[in-house]
Amino acid sequence: MSFTLEHKDPGSSARAGLFQTAHGPVHTPIFMPVGTVASVKGVHQRELREEVDPDIILGNTYHLYLRPGMDILEAAGGLHAFMGWDRAILTDSGGYQVYSLSANRKIKEEGVKFKSHIDGSYHVFTPERVMELQRSIGADIIMAFDECTPYPCDYKYAERSMHMTHRWLDRCLEHLEKVPPKYGYGQSFFPIVQGSTYKDLRERSAEYIASKGAVGNAIGGLSVGEPAEEMYAMAGAVCAILPEDKPRYLMGVGTPANILENIALGVDMFDCVMPTRNARNGMLFTSEGTINIKNKKWEADFSPLDPEGRTFVDREYTRAYLRHLFAANEYLGKQIATLHNLGFYLQLVREARQKIAEGTFAAWKDKMVRQMDKRL
Amino acid sequence: MSFTLEHKDPGSSARAGLFQTAHGPVHTPIFMPVGTVASVKGVHQRELREEVDPDIILGNTYHLYLRPGMDILEAAGGLHAFMGWDRAILTDSGGYQVYSLSANRKIKEEGVKFKSHIDGSYHVFTPERVMELQRSIGADIIMAFDECTPYPCDYKYAERSMHMTHRWLDRCLEHLEKVPPKYGYGQSFFPIVQGSTYKDLRERSAEYIASKGAVGNAIGGLSVGEPAEEMYAMAGAVCAILPEDKPRYLMGVGTPANILENIALGVDMFDCVMPTRNARNGMLFTSEGTINIKNKKWEADFSPLDPEGRTFVDREYTRAYLRHLFAANEYLGKQIATLHNLGFYLQLVREARQKIAEGTFAAWKDKMVRQMDKRL
Repeated sequence: MSFTLEHKDPGSSARAGLFQTAHGPVHTPIFMPVGTVASVKGVHQRELREEVDPDIILGNTYHLYLRPGMDILEAAGGLHAFMGWDRAILTDSGGYQVYSLSANRKIKEEGVKFKSHIDGSYHVFTPERVMELQRSIGADIIMAFDECTPYPCDYKYAERSMHMTHRWLDRCLEHLEKVPPKYGYGQSFFPIVQGSTYKDLRERSAEYIASKGAVGNAIGGLSVGEPAEEMYAMAGAVCAILPEDKPRYLMGVGTPANILENIALGVDMFDCVMPTRNARNGMLFTSEGTINIKNKKWEADFSPLDPEGRTFVDREYTRAYLRHLFAANEYLGKQIATLHNLGFYLQLVREARQKIAEGTFAAWKDKMVRQMDKRL
Repeated sequence: MSFTLEHKDPGSSARAGLFQTAHGPVHTPIFMPVGTVASVKGVHQRELREEVDPDIILGNTYHLYLRPGMDILEAAGGLHAFMGWDRAILTDSGGYQVYSLSANRKIKEEGVKFKSHIDGSYHVFTPERVMELQRSIGADIIMAFDECTPYPCDYKYAERSMHMTHRWLDRCLEHLEKVPPKYGYGQSFFPIVQGSTYKDLRERSAEYIASKGAVGNAIGGLSVGEPAEEMYAMAGAVCAILPEDKPRYLMGVGTPANILENIALGVDMFDCVMPTRNARNGMLFTSEGTINIKNKKWEADFSPLDPEGRTFVDREYTRAYLRHLFAANEYLGKQIATLHNLGFYLQLVREARQKIAEGTFAAWKDKMVRQMDKRL
């Protein structure tokens, strides 16, 4: 569990690094495909490994807690064994899902009481409980329990919430000090910076988080509806404070352009449902721009899905065929689009890493951001 | 386009053969996975080829006519190119789908007028039109346009319908004589025996169909609700009349036991949605019996899905994991179950072929039928 900073881009704050986990190395910058409930929707683990090839994927504590539940995950020997994924896994803490439940949860100092979206049953997450859940899941990187504030959020609420997130962080750390590794390997704990879109709060939070000396640090509470410029301003302010020699994880971000811009600000790790969720709605990301494959214009386009793409779906299927699958509501369409988009996201961060190593990231990033914005 | 009878089982009427098509050899007995609308639901073409490994798959003319439509298929150069499948394809004639529409179609001597299940628009299928559709699709084996009678069916209706199916057959043949191959390769035309569950009608129909000297012959109108014993009685009576040196295709059949019993009667080719549709409902076929993977009993069963299975899903996933995917309504569960079931069906017919070659089919069939009937 150590981070090595390998390259720094001369034209931006972008960095390339290597984070070692018990389940292999994570090369940064990295995008983590989201496997909410022990599955990246519509993708076989073998395809994910061989075609998309991420060093790490993400699981959601809230969803895994409800299904399959901790008894089953413990009996299996943790999430890696349960789902058959032997590379690294990061789990979120449930803070974001609890935030999404809005009307169906109550946040107090002790923790959060919420209603299951599945059967309406009541459950309580506290910092200590969430650490135990993440120990049972056995992810390589586990996250602090935090409150993710909505956007917009009034200053007073954001400040109070930030302080509670800090107190929850201390409770997480205290709890983790008392417990040994569950499955014979260490788990890296990342605290989370909050503070909504207020620069002074973000800076105070980043200083508090940095003071904990964790092996990696995260930025939460962004990509919740604020303009991209505010997101970049907050990420930039926080990256300037978080230690340079530790990986920085911006939670829940984002579009391909968002990812490149935040890499330029010094962020190393990303996750987002966008490539997978948008794929299921027929939206493809490519280096030339986005494609809505449902459009009639692709009906008789028998060219490969993406001549630049690296996965087998890019070569083996045509746009016309994929368009047909969406028109006929065939699930294979979602499978193909998902593999394409994940392949594109991972290729993008691999290329970013390459450009950082070559010292040419900044100019490349500007060109890519312009291109990827187009609608094809 | 020729059939070679390679082996005959001494203990039954089972045979092993080889049917040559423009898209490669079809080793019989064979089960054809159903790719209704240019996709075997939830399965990538590459997986189908490499894991399930069928020599031939089936497409549905009715569905392909509605989506993507003949213009697109012709522009693509036929279904093989459109969907990226370079092995053999068989298309049905739409007779069965028209039968399924029941209230939404009108059958006359000229043909069938029906209402699309998608947008309620009206369409007409005649024998000549259906031949043209199958030429545009470009399947290697194309089927006569027939009326599939329901079960039960009164004798008078069955007899009248059979004669109309025979007249439609003649119209198909007359039409095909006039037209050249569309994509530079020949298509094999199979006529269809009808006659409901009446032995004398089935025999008269088989004699009429046999008299046409087609390269292969089919048995339709079974597996529509009649008891298995009636199905076997009809298939047996028909196989005794259809020429021995031509492949026999029993349409829409069936369970693994149905398939083995009909192989014993002299049937060579099968198709059915059962392995794929039941998979999507959580039912797995194995050599030891069937599994309802949704049952709680599999919740903590961390053994491989099917230690005897030949596809990667059998080795790489556990029963507990698959049970979880179904419980959480994750589509990957359907993908896994589908690959497993298709792998099982194809392995079953390959093993049947092997046993026929060895002359030990009959005893093996009896043992397998007993085993596969169990519920695990």
